[in-house]
Amino acid sequence: MRLSQFFLPLIKENPSEAQIVSHRLMLRAGMVRQLTAGIYNWLPLGLMVLRNIENIIREEMNKSGAIEVLMPTLQPTELWKESGRYDALGKEMLRFPDRAERELLYSPTCEEVITDIVRTNFKSYRDAGKNLYQIQWKFRDEIRPRFGVMRGREFLMKDSYSFDIDYEGAKKTYNLMYDTYLRMFSRMGLTAVPVRADSGAIGGDLSHEFHVVADTGESALYYDVAFDDIRDGKVKMTTEEMRQLYAAADEQHKPGTIPKERLREARGIEVGHIFYLGKKYSSAMNATVPGTNGENITLDMGCYGVGVSRLVGAIIEASHDDNGIIWPESVAPFKVGIINLRVGDAKCDEMCGKLYEMLQSKNVSVLYDDTNERAGGKFASMDLIGLPWQVTIGPKGAEKGMVELKNRRTGEKVEVSVEMALDNLLNNKVIYDKRFLTAT
Amino acid sequence: MRLSQFFLPLIKENPSEAQIVSHRLMLRAGMVRQLTAGIYNWLPLGLMVLRNIENIIREEMNKSGAIEVLMPTLQPTELWKESGRYDALGKEMLRFPDRAERELLYSPTCEEVITDIVRTNFKSYRDAGKNLYQIQWKFRDEIRPRFGVMRGREFLMKDSYSFDIDYEGAKKTYNLMYDTYLRMFSRMGLTAVPVRADSGAIGGDLSHEFHVVADTGESALYYDVAFDDIRDGKVKMTTEEMRQLYAAADEQHKPGTIPKERLREARGIEVGHIFYLGKKYSSAMNATVPGTNGENITLDMGCYGVGVSRLVGAIIEASHDDNGIIWPESVAPFKVGIINLRVGDAKCDEMCGKLYEMLQSKNVSVLYDDTNERAGGKFASMDLIGLPWQVTIGPKGAEKGMVELKNRRTGEKVEVSVEMALDNLLNNKVIYDKRFLTAT
Repeated sequence: MRLSQFFLPLIKENPSEAQIVSHRLMLRAGMVRQLTAGIYNWLPLGLMVLRNIENIIREEMNKSGAIEVLMPTLQPTELWKESGRYDALGKEMLRFPDRAERELLYSPTCEEVITDIVRTNFKSYRDAGKNLYQIQWKFRDEIRPRFGVMRGREFLMKDSYSFDIDYEGAKKTYNLMYDTYLRMFSRMGLTAVPVRADSGAIGGDLSHEFHVVADTGESALYYDVAFDDIRDGKVKMTTEEMRQLYAAADEQHKPGTIPKERLREARGIEVGHIFYLGKKYSSAMNATVPGTNGENITLDMGCYGVGVSRLVGAIIEASHDDNGIIWPESVAPFKVGIINLRVGDAKCDEMCGKLYEMLQSKNVSVLYDDTNERAGGKFASMDLIGLPWQVTIGPKGAEKGMVELKNRRTGEKVEVSVEMALDNLLNNKVIYDKRFLTAT
Repeated sequence: MRLSQFFLPLIKENPSEAQIVSHRLMLRAGMVRQLTAGIYNWLPLGLMVLRNIENIIREEMNKSGAIEVLMPTLQPTELWKESGRYDALGKEMLRFPDRAERELLYSPTCEEVITDIVRTNFKSYRDAGKNLYQIQWKFRDEIRPRFGVMRGREFLMKDSYSFDIDYEGAKKTYNLMYDTYLRMFSRMGLTAVPVRADSGAIGGDLSHEFHVVADTGESALYYDVAFDDIRDGKVKMTTEEMRQLYAAADEQHKPGTIPKERLREARGIEVGHIFYLGKKYSSAMNATVPGTNGENITLDMGCYGVGVSRLVGAIIEASHDDNGIIWPESVAPFKVGIINLRVGDAKCDEMCGKLYEMLQSKNVSVLYDDTNERAGGKFASMDLIGLPWQVTIGPKGAEKGMVELKNRRTGEKVEVSVEMALDNLLNNKVIYDKRFLTAT
């Protein structure tokens, strides 16, 4: 994409409305704009990141055998009366009458609708053992929406719901989701720590929240250093092994459980939650299937959520510096930014244009700054939007066929030939931060 | 995907609630289920088609240089008061207060919001010349929602909005969209006929509706036979040439305009609309940019819509037979269906399994019917869901290494070796309907 043809409205000053760094940087980098309290427009750069995150989640869910569906944003309230939750959610659930005076709600979550789909479409025990997921917008009418997309009112969520024949099946699905979540967050370049969560009367020990490590997190995290090592590619571990690692949040933490040298203390942001539901909804809503002998089996459920739009903010909280965002390659809107230091100079234009075409022809996404902005402004903008790699081409270098290649995360710079830059970008050779390796 | 692990709830009988064929077939093929009047759950098969259509639209829009954004489904009503449309849409626009008693609406269209984004983020005439699009759910509270997803209340729409400096620029963008729409619908295997539409006082002659040809269409279409020839790959024509072809709907038609032998009469379903807006919104909402001399330029707008969820129904209306749906390859949920006639037979299982793996490894999407259903039921189901190619493997053929390859559209069947079947499916060799060629 040529910057001159893109829509990237950057903001130089820190917006006063933003209290946390991800909100500030998302506004400054032209990723989002607030339309009204807690409701955001996604501009091109923000949408690209949102879609990249969505795709990682989709791939990992599909790999786990889960099946994608899509439920509407608006639902009739009847189903919520049937499940007994109509009154439970209070004013956070946005309800309103349609023109025929039938009450609708904007879905904050979909247990009722998916259970309704399953009870009318599962014909026998053979249909069970399925995990149905969607990636869909939700609405929660927060009394104090804040922190940008981290606590918005309209937000994108991956929610899935599993329907098994018995507890053993449900537990197996639960563990599969646990593993899937670890892989999914790790692919986003995040350290995700699964901590046991309050599961009320139903969940037993089958309830975990996934927190990503970020200095600005809302909760205190205590976890085995191995989680960091895994993210950094220093150790490989099966998810079964990872499940044994120590992790706790806030008052859950029991000092002395693991040796001090293995313990990490950090702040965490909740980005996912997996939860064994048992028969709470299937029983209230009569979601049953005939078993092998024709007997009625009430389905055993679990639900598994990921805050997709929240993750955009969480990744920035976890990965930025004073100059701006530092995207892990797997979610970066573009992998490479090309800076043309003298637009109009024949050599510069030619070399930039060539590199741009070459990278695109190899399916490497590139943002090419072909504007007339001053050099200083171009550098600042490129750092702000946080693309993993920058290639700077100026008149002196162009004369010799040389470019400057910069790694946004480490700040390392090398002067190399344009061919070598290309080779490095295609094969990640010269300067490579290990954190990217685990993230892609 | 193995059918035993998929979620495909087929219905044998014609559902009484459905009046038109696409609605009937979408219910029977397990593509959608109604949640409440005009609001649908998308089950896996339906969602796959919806996503395929969405991707064709996205690719063609990106090729045209348009830039994707995403506006929220809920909007504050203030902007609509500013544009003067707050009262115009009446009860079709769903409005309701949030918990703070501020009025929100569920977006039926986005001229106001995009104009608001542009006026606050375009800094100079250099920012103009952009076409911003989104693919997002909309809501129109139809008094009588009907015909399934063809006239639902919650529906998926591609809407784009262009902002140019002057009429010449706007007209150029308009023509580019005209061409883009022809390409996009043609890629979906449709004959799309652009007919001049009522543009009120603003549009002048810059307003076209795109109707796809289907026997069950709501409007009468009169068009040059060349549109069919293009779809069938019989002629190649530039979009400039296509723009000269005769096309009219209903009372617009002037008999005798083109020779009788060139005239086609058919029924049409509206799936897209392009419209020159001029300064209606930019002027009411003060969307201006400073020009080269600092003078205020009020932006010249156009808007361009495609009914994405409606297209799923429209394609079925245009492409089905008594046995079910016939998907054009470009939008088919799977390209190939494998029918194992005797699950449990070692040879059948092995040959089916091998073919399934081979196709998947070549990125050909496959649905493998590995269930215990009777042969007759399997054939009927495969015809109903309309995958372009069927491969049937039974014990007798498996003994000799032979399979039956069937083209769903033509009904042609050939007995070939499994290797030849594979070769044909990868390279579309033996039996090939020309309509696919234009569609993919």
